[in-house]
Amino acid sequence: MSDDASLRRAFDWFRSQEDFERRFGEAIRQSFDEVFDGQRTGRYCLDQLSKVEKTYIGTKVEIVVQAEFGLSRGSRMDFLVDDQEVDAKWTMKSGAWMIPTEAVGEICLCLTADDNRSIFSVGVIRADEDLLGNAQNKDGKRRFNDLGKESMTWLVETGQLPENVLLHLGEDVREQVLDKGKSGQKRVDDLFRLVQKKLISREVLLAVAHQQDGPKRVRDARLSLKAEGIVILGHQGDHPRIARELGIEMPAKGTWISCRVVPATGITSSSARIGYSNWRPATSDEDCVEVPANY
Amino acid sequence: MSDDASLRRAFDWFRSQEDFERRFGEAIRQSFDEVFDGQRTGRYCLDQLSKVEKTYIGTKVEIVVQAEFGLSRGSRMDFLVDDQEVDAKWTMKSGAWMIPTEAVGEICLCLTADDNRSIFSVGVIRADEDLLGNAQNKDGKRRFNDLGKESMTWLVETGQLPENVLLHLGEDVREQVLDKGKSGQKRVDDLFRLVQKKLISREVLLAVAHQQDGPKRVRDARLSLKAEGIVILGHQGDHPRIARELGIEMPAKGTWISCRVVPATGITSSSARIGYSNWRPATSDEDCVEVPANY
Repeated sequence: MSDDASLRRAFDWFRSQEDFERRFGEAIRQSFDEVFDGQRTGRYCLDQLSKVEKTYIGTKVEIVVQAEFGLSRGSRMDFLVDDQEVDAKWTMKSGAWMIPTEAVGEICLCLTADDNRSIFSVGVIRADEDLLGNAQNKDGKRRFNDLGKESMTWLVETGQLPENVLLHLGEDVREQVLDKGKSGQKRVDDLFRLVQKKLISREVLLAVAHQQDGPKRVRDARLSLKAEGIVILGHQGDHPRIARELGIEMPAKGTWISCRVVPATGITSSSARIGYSNWRPATSDEDCVEVPANY
Repeated sequence: MSDDASLRRAFDWFRSQEDFERRFGEAIRQSFDEVFDGQRTGRYCLDQLSKVEKTYIGTKVEIVVQAEFGLSRGSRMDFLVDDQEVDAKWTMKSGAWMIPTEAVGEICLCLTADDNRSIFSVGVIRADEDLLGNAQNKDGKRRFNDLGKESMTWLVETGQLPENVLLHLGEDVREQVLDKGKSGQKRVDDLFRLVQKKLISREVLLAVAHQQDGPKRVRDARLSLKAEGIVILGHQGDHPRIARELGIEMPAKGTWISCRVVPATGITSSSARIGYSNWRPATSDEDCVEVPANY
């Protein structure tokens, strides 16, 4: 890259963006989730998509990345990055980016992710002729050769993709939280009962609820589960403090986390004030104690 | 259709669904708007989509219709409609549905729409061999022949598609409300200033605002525009009453409508109480009078 000033500028621009790694990861997560359309379809896995939808993911990633970083459209390529024309290239399989004739010699922003392993990569490269293999697909697109793969300059080589919670549930738990034989509310109750101490995103909630009014379902689940001592924390009021004190992840806006608690004796390192008393995370062998719902 | 009991059942089922015409129209509008992704891209027109996105619209329509009518997946075809296997077929051009080999002899729900003319059509047909033309595309798909087109049983022959407001603006107004050189707030102000007495959907608002917090932009626009006598009405509180009294459309949840008003002398057929006084729609030659913002 050292002698390619344009490529260097595009690389440096992304590197200078605050939190760029997290933002690339969230853009890819968001793109997958929008194409799953879990709220309408209950899908959570790339294997469940049609061929058209798999192709469309590349388009959605390009759109979300452009919007996330506030890039304008290029005149020849997808984006302008610090005044350099850059084309976005997506592939499901690392290294397998397909370069069409019109992108040969151009700067490419290459993105990929593995939802099973919760990782993603983003790199920049100038797709010069000598970096491309000879084999073409029917549209005349070519992959990078070994030299090409070595020449990638990584912005994020192995980034942490926000977890696809539904994908990583055990089969039996997933069946329970997606069971169409139950009401949306019962499924949401089960989600927070069976999937504790894990951040639940709005997308996961809507895929499980299979309806629009997710936040209302969370409020009702809070009441359903209080007898079992399960709290559900969001991003408002005292909730972040309670999550911190319990030693579980703090929910950002549009996410929730549940945890079964029991009364704590005294203030310990993982005890939290909930209502007027102290509680701590329960262990699996402890009996349920009803928790107040006005936290 | 008379001697095809399965086709009749699928047809009758859709006909029996409350408001099915409106719901089909809204499903198609929603599908277009989601693929435009106006909030991120500012796009409002099918011509602005890539080939992949145009193809994907058919998938989105299928998903939204399935969710809207609560249909389950078929085992061979897309949906089960009153226990009958039904395949959804979308085309941008009426009559041009492409029938793949696996759908020959099957019941098809055929949908199309014209965003320029704000119309849509939905029909059912059994795609029998004798209703299909001979010409095949490269994937072996065929169109209906003339007999096929005549054999369509329309659920909605010429339905009213919810209007694509941005598409139908004059070029100069559209440029002003999408001008990236201005802030999102200024664009939203211009939208409600320049596009009055027309329902503005959440999707249009977000495409213009180019950011997430649309409702906040509306609240601020209300303050910006009060000096010009422009009110912006939503679905809450007194707003529906004011819209009704002014004789403009009543905004449903997630829509807004603006109207420039002047003090009314006495109560007339189009005068509305706003705050503590009566107002009526202004004509273009009347001077601006500041309206209270606490309506």
